[in-house]
Amino acid sequence: MPTYQMTVEYDGTDWHGWQIQPDENTIQGELEQALGIICRTEVPVVGSGRTDAGVHARGQIAHFILEHPIELSRLANSLNGVLPTSISVRNLQAVPDKFHARFDAISRRYSYTIQTVPAALGSKFSWFIRPSPDIAEMISAAPYLVGKNDYSAFCTTKSETKNRVCNITHASWSPGPPDGCWVFQIEADRFLHGMVRAIVGTLIEIGHGKRSPESIIKIIGSRDRRDAGATAPAKGLVLETVGYPL
Amino acid sequence: MPTYQMTVEYDGTDWHGWQIQPDENTIQGELEQALGIICRTEVPVVGSGRTDAGVHARGQIAHFILEHPIELSRLANSLNGVLPTSISVRNLQAVPDKFHARFDAISRRYSYTIQTVPAALGSKFSWFIRPSPDIAEMISAAPYLVGKNDYSAFCTTKSETKNRVCNITHASWSPGPPDGCWVFQIEADRFLHGMVRAIVGTLIEIGHGKRSPESIIKIIGSRDRRDAGATAPAKGLVLETVGYPL
Repeated sequence: MPTYQMTVEYDGTDWHGWQIQPDENTIQGELEQALGIICRTEVPVVGSGRTDAGVHARGQIAHFILEHPIELSRLANSLNGVLPTSISVRNLQAVPDKFHARFDAISRRYSYTIQTVPAALGSKFSWFIRPSPDIAEMISAAPYLVGKNDYSAFCTTKSETKNRVCNITHASWSPGPPDGCWVFQIEADRFLHGMVRAIVGTLIEIGHGKRSPESIIKIIGSRDRRDAGATAPAKGLVLETVGYPL
Repeated sequence: MPTYQMTVEYDGTDWHGWQIQPDENTIQGELEQALGIICRTEVPVVGSGRTDAGVHARGQIAHFILEHPIELSRLANSLNGVLPTSISVRNLQAVPDKFHARFDAISRRYSYTIQTVPAALGSKFSWFIRPSPDIAEMISAAPYLVGKNDYSAFCTTKSETKNRVCNITHASWSPGPPDGCWVFQIEADRFLHGMVRAIVGTLIEIGHGKRSPESIIKIIGSRDRRDAGATAPAKGLVLETVGYPL
């Protein structure tokens, strides 16, 4: 049966995260509802992974299966017509029948934006840090995150995932625009629940002189969430891209 | 008495415009309230001009007068601490006593963002245009707007301003990022009420083939609002900068 892959962008501000939950408005729920209206049948949507309430996405990937082939540009237009403006389908394409958005994904890239100067226009998509952190320390700390390790220290304690090994291939800070804005980019084969936000919270504590850049090594080694920093707010986090084998 | 100039950035989404109005939440009202709390006295705030409900600003300029000099960085921090996150003071400086944010301004620059592809992350700061307009036609039309003319054709009919002559020094479209995003930039010595939004609405009608690029000349000549296009939505409009003599 024809399988389709879509790239989904969303402003997560007013949503209860990706995953369908009873009595909550979620991105996956809206997508399934929109597909249901257009295709007049139930269409389950499978994402590359969950994002928490308030987290945004520029390139979330999801797949769904239809009984019969459908014209792609018409379906994309219909979806964007039915979906709220805070959720948009940026790309829609046919993929091989066996494609699975979650199981086939080999990498994920997230960005996290902080502001060191209050910036109203970015306030819903960044974390305002006060007092201003020492960015040089945070830049020095980032490379210590890279590697294949058990990252339990950055995983929410409520997580039931047993395998906590991730391969972080990239972690760096780069300046805005606008002035006073810094963006943290991190890429890995997979991420644990709450991992990027725990990492960013820890990096900010390093920027505030509460920890050294090298302390990252000890934190990872501890495998204890209590050794890492506070969780950064959801609003600064964006799922940028999901990678699949060519 | 010491006079101060501030650069104000705001996300206008949830505000009833710049100007104080009874029973409405406005940017000017929030600034005066914040200054009142900090300075423990009434402090009138004078802006370079009004912006309508839903319009944003990156560089609105305002001035206020205090009885006694105050430490600038402390005042800026206090203001940003008291103000809601959708309003921020980006710069604060002492200016000569006679400085007036409105009377002294010699230019204003606005941007207006459109999306030709639905983009959830920009949906509160852009107008999604469907069907996709012919951008080349809109680019051709922009230069016809430049000049010193009576722009009554682009002024809301309810406006009581008698002098409708403005000197538009720049008008152009440039591409995003992201893909499918186009930004209209316009600069003039002054703007009439609803002028940029009426101009953008007209340019979109040109992009949809309902008018020719050269029709701008006739529209300006008519001095009749009914000859121009529909008013573009407020959310795509940003007051970028206000210019003063050096």
